[in-house]
Amino acid sequence: MQTPMEQDLNELKDRVFNMLDLAIESIQHSIEALNSFDTSMADRIIADDKNIDLLGKEIDDTCLKIIAVRQPAATDLRFILSIIKINTDLERIADLSCSIASQVIKIKHRYHIKPLVDIPRMAELAIEMLRDVMQAITTKDSQKAKEVIARDEIIDRLNDQIYRELLTVMAENPHTIGNAISLMNVSKALERIGDHITNIAAQAVFYVEGEDVRHLNA
Amino acid sequence: MQTPMEQDLNELKDRVFNMLDLAIESIQHSIEALNSFDTSMADRIIADDKNIDLLGKEIDDTCLKIIAVRQPAATDLRFILSIIKINTDLERIADLSCSIASQVIKIKHRYHIKPLVDIPRMAELAIEMLRDVMQAITTKDSQKAKEVIARDEIIDRLNDQIYRELLTVMAENPHTIGNAISLMNVSKALERIGDHITNIAAQAVFYVEGEDVRHLNA
Repeated sequence: MQTPMEQDLNELKDRVFNMLDLAIESIQHSIEALNSFDTSMADRIIADDKNIDLLGKEIDDTCLKIIAVRQPAATDLRFILSIIKINTDLERIADLSCSIASQVIKIKHRYHIKPLVDIPRMAELAIEMLRDVMQAITTKDSQKAKEVIARDEIIDRLNDQIYRELLTVMAENPHTIGNAISLMNVSKALERIGDHITNIAAQAVFYVEGEDVRHLNA
Repeated sequence: MQTPMEQDLNELKDRVFNMLDLAIESIQHSIEALNSFDTSMADRIIADDKNIDLLGKEIDDTCLKIIAVRQPAATDLRFILSIIKINTDLERIADLSCSIASQVIKIKHRYHIKPLVDIPRMAELAIEMLRDVMQAITTKDSQKAKEVIARDEIIDRLNDQIYRELLTVMAENPHTIGNAISLMNVSKALERIGDHITNIAAQAVFYVEGEDVRHLNA
């Protein structure tokens, strides 16, 4: 038998995992829309964001209610406060997928400047990191969460590399400037998604170890 | 006489206002550094960010302790949960000032493409909004907080305008590309600062009215 507190926390976890799935989907769809220059898909990503926002609000309300009604102590309270922060990061990740989608709408019908190899690679890395960090929370594995934090560097390096490449392309072919800036913005959005995943991983360590590592990687 | 809870909440408020002052200072300094191309000032902004991070961590710890020890109900709990979110937004605002500072370091010694009138204007607007939103929290004035949310549109419009102007400059003079992208990044950072202030204002409304307006402006 579960205690009422355990039941509440399990329901909360389910919602957060639902939120995670939606965040991962939003990244995947935004990159698919970019690869195929599919602006109607991009429109849909932006429209669907309100569902993620609603779920985020529900999770916040649930956290508030659990604290008010159950008065959790120590580990449970730390878990709930972590969820409040993780929830915000997941919402922002979905917002950044919308930013990518809005770049797709801008790029439409324009000259495609180079094969987009590194941008989908960044998105794949981000999705892997997101899955791993949520697994780290489920299994209370702080080592795994720390490894996720370390991997953000790869995303940062790819972003720097894309930036330099696009700068060269723009200087050589000024007619590519508009498109190149859109791709820079997509790359930057993925880099920021990596930062939010790092925040989530730091919250995971804080929850498991009671240690605040948010700025270890700063 | 104050109750222990009132005393705790007042101390918490003082820390958050301290955090606010540091966030405002970081914006001001980053724009001063940009205006004077002062890279040593830019280095200092980046170095000082760890103090803001430390204070942010202290505020989170204090929130956790107050909840655990005092078991606040209703309004007090809502206030503390709002502070946890506002604290994150203030930290991110300071991070964005560091992004501006890092662009200043990149711009160093390069050709200065146009007088920076709109960028300092965006920064001024952001600082005014930050001051107003914190006053709205102090006076529990949700109307004032809603007005702050509405003003974010002006910052967004300035960002769009700067983007279009810089795009034209780059197309006409490809040797300005590097600098123009740095200025676009500064403008984008200020636009994101505006978004974080909007989040803070939505939390202020949530705290005062118990209503969630985070996505009214979405």
